[in-house]
Amino acid sequence: MDITKKAIGANQASIQLSAISTYSKNRALKAVRDQMQKKTSDIVLANQADLEKAEKEKLPGPLLKRLKFDESKIEEACEGLGSLSKLPDPVGRTLTATKLDGGLELYKVTCPIGVIGVVFESRPDALVQISSLCLKSGNAVLLKGGSEAANTNKILAEIVSSASIKAGIPDNWLTLLETRADVKEMLDLDDYIDLIIPRGSNTFVKQIMQSTTIPVLGHADGICHVYIDDKADLDMAVNIVVDSKTQYVAVCNAVETVLVHKDIAHTLLPQLKDALEQKGVELRGCDKTVQIIKVKAAAEEDWSTEYLDLILSIKVVNDLNAAIDHINRYGSKHTDVIVTKNRANAIDFMDRVDSADVFLNCSSRFSDGFRFGLGAEVGISTNKIHARGPVGLEGLVIYKWILIGNGHIVADYSGKEAKNFIHKKLRKTFDLYKMRKKPV
Amino acid sequence: MDITKKAIGANQASIQLSAISTYSKNRALKAVRDQMQKKTSDIVLANQADLEKAEKEKLPGPLLKRLKFDESKIEEACEGLGSLSKLPDPVGRTLTATKLDGGLELYKVTCPIGVIGVVFESRPDALVQISSLCLKSGNAVLLKGGSEAANTNKILAEIVSSASIKAGIPDNWLTLLETRADVKEMLDLDDYIDLIIPRGSNTFVKQIMQSTTIPVLGHADGICHVYIDDKADLDMAVNIVVDSKTQYVAVCNAVETVLVHKDIAHTLLPQLKDALEQKGVELRGCDKTVQIIKVKAAAEEDWSTEYLDLILSIKVVNDLNAAIDHINRYGSKHTDVIVTKNRANAIDFMDRVDSADVFLNCSSRFSDGFRFGLGAEVGISTNKIHARGPVGLEGLVIYKWILIGNGHIVADYSGKEAKNFIHKKLRKTFDLYKMRKKPV
Repeated sequence: MDITKKAIGANQASIQLSAISTYSKNRALKAVRDQMQKKTSDIVLANQADLEKAEKEKLPGPLLKRLKFDESKIEEACEGLGSLSKLPDPVGRTLTATKLDGGLELYKVTCPIGVIGVVFESRPDALVQISSLCLKSGNAVLLKGGSEAANTNKILAEIVSSASIKAGIPDNWLTLLETRADVKEMLDLDDYIDLIIPRGSNTFVKQIMQSTTIPVLGHADGICHVYIDDKADLDMAVNIVVDSKTQYVAVCNAVETVLVHKDIAHTLLPQLKDALEQKGVELRGCDKTVQIIKVKAAAEEDWSTEYLDLILSIKVVNDLNAAIDHINRYGSKHTDVIVTKNRANAIDFMDRVDSADVFLNCSSRFSDGFRFGLGAEVGISTNKIHARGPVGLEGLVIYKWILIGNGHIVADYSGKEAKNFIHKKLRKTFDLYKMRKKPV
Repeated sequence: MDITKKAIGANQASIQLSAISTYSKNRALKAVRDQMQKKTSDIVLANQADLEKAEKEKLPGPLLKRLKFDESKIEEACEGLGSLSKLPDPVGRTLTATKLDGGLELYKVTCPIGVIGVVFESRPDALVQISSLCLKSGNAVLLKGGSEAANTNKILAEIVSSASIKAGIPDNWLTLLETRADVKEMLDLDDYIDLIIPRGSNTFVKQIMQSTTIPVLGHADGICHVYIDDKADLDMAVNIVVDSKTQYVAVCNAVETVLVHKDIAHTLLPQLKDALEQKGVELRGCDKTVQIIKVKAAAEEDWSTEYLDLILSIKVVNDLNAAIDHINRYGSKHTDVIVTKNRANAIDFMDRVDSADVFLNCSSRFSDGFRFGLGAEVGISTNKIHARGPVGLEGLVIYKWILIGNGHIVADYSGKEAKNFIHKKLRKTFDLYKMRKKPV
């Protein structure tokens, strides 16, 4: 496959896509849904081929489970497409409108980013979700899925591509890459690709981040913390830690380290130990922790380890400041929780913890696009620019500045008899976009 | 100078800065202004030293003019600080508020990016402007100015730093780098620096973009176009081209190529030639252009050259599509203008030209933070993510997701008796932030 050619094609498609009406995009999403329903048995057959191969190769049980894409999962994906078609268009929203002078109006209007390269793990539903989010936000996409799901991904990409193109979406807007070499080639194409979204293991994501000059949106580690303040409701704290650790263990928003204020450590730690050991969690404690409860000693590297497993490290801290320092030093800017009844401590924590998600009195596991009400997510970002935390449709758009004049020139606003700018905020939307949104 | 140590210091300061009240930041801006007024004669002395050195080294006249920082320029900078202190705080704005369930509320709230590294050209007023924008937006900053302005930059950085710290801003929030080697070192410190903003020649900016994994906000080239449609008002078109090319020639938002619809080329080109040659502009035309007016022939490389000079290339195009294709191929995603009376053509151009600024019937020179009413700008971005076009205070902030619960756990929202999310948009702001904004 000639990846450069594919990327150029995607780039050309993205220009057409940015001008396409909301109506056309939604019609295409529904066409994809209909086609997926029609082809359910073909998809299941392709998926069975992947599953058989995976079983032969003795893939671990959880991976097999994620790989499975049966009737009920297909129906779920179809429902997702239906919901997505009903969401407001993220493109063409007027963010600000300003009257610069009589007849000279400035609009900041959202638009697609352009071409997005997505590399994702084995779950085939990710292909449908990501490509449909790209379509709704007007972006062209190059996709690479896990090789275990090759057959399933292939038929799904064909359905999404052909059904949407038949419904009026430009050719070449979606390309499924086949090999790791394809991905490597893609990472060099900064002339044609505007954003890379990698989803997978942290080693994999870090590799990608280090080998491209294209902006990368995502996260490598998910080293999340729960800090239990001396002013915490201790029962609540235990509940939150148990949920954050055990509700689903192999995910980036599960907690890896619990920080406990020294004044409550003697009361809380034994309760925490009981509750977590009942769930089969192995504990590793700091010097002070092991003096209070009988657990393994934590090593320095425990504080920066994403276990993704039933293991939790515990550290006793002197105060809120020490907790914040620990999180900013060892954390991954993902999701961190404070449990406290003290309002000032909560503000302080949420201000000074430099993470995408800062939570008060609830589980770290809420950090998720669906739970946040974003519809769906393309991933969770620990970047400091563009988009942070769970990224839904809004992270897939940027904006343009549109200035509408009537022959205005800058010379009139400079020199001795310079006209002044008015700079009046207008409460109006960019109406040319509205026109375009009518059915075509 | 130990740059890593400085960057760590800036990083620690940025954590404190992100929690500082609006009142404190504005008080600090006014303190800087007062101190600059008090020290006017010292600043002028330092600047004279730079000017004398520059004259000895025979720097070109325009550079000398930019380097000059006299009483009136200092007063202008002080006025800028006063205005900035009156602008709304970009930090702590609630972007969205969502009720996920009873007692579980999600807020998307703006916050500073963290530590910003800025490398800028010789104008000393840039130091005051950039550092004050960083202060107002709660970011720590590492600055490197042009070596011609070393004395002026040094005293200005001292004033900004000491006056603001005395007014309560954390130590080490501002560091002035001294050498190019310092900058090189800074570009490696992706653990401590969140964003690089380079302002200078395109070679310089490209070098920086290629030698760091820290996100870079800015632009290398400014290859801007004016497309004159067959449905244009021709007098207006000539006016706009003259202003876009000659109002100020050595800037990124000046036009470099004019595209002319073939149907009006015979009428328009002679008018355009007259008007531009009166202003001393050298014209370079495509094959079709040189058949109509007597001008130099343009070479292929002219279409991708940023002249920053009294030179303009002209190309006759078959239609709107050809104009859009040319701009997307040769342009730099900066500012592009269409002159037309046809509404559909205008929409099409503004949709499909992939640039930060797309203008209708006005000069490309309006592409500027001050003219856009952003207060001031840290630069103009041709990036496709985060911030595009002139970047003011809003480009210096990102957001956090703040989730406030009361013991909520995810286990309650999964499985057979799962609770449902409400996902109701709330019209409220995050009130803990309001509390913090009261005077301290």
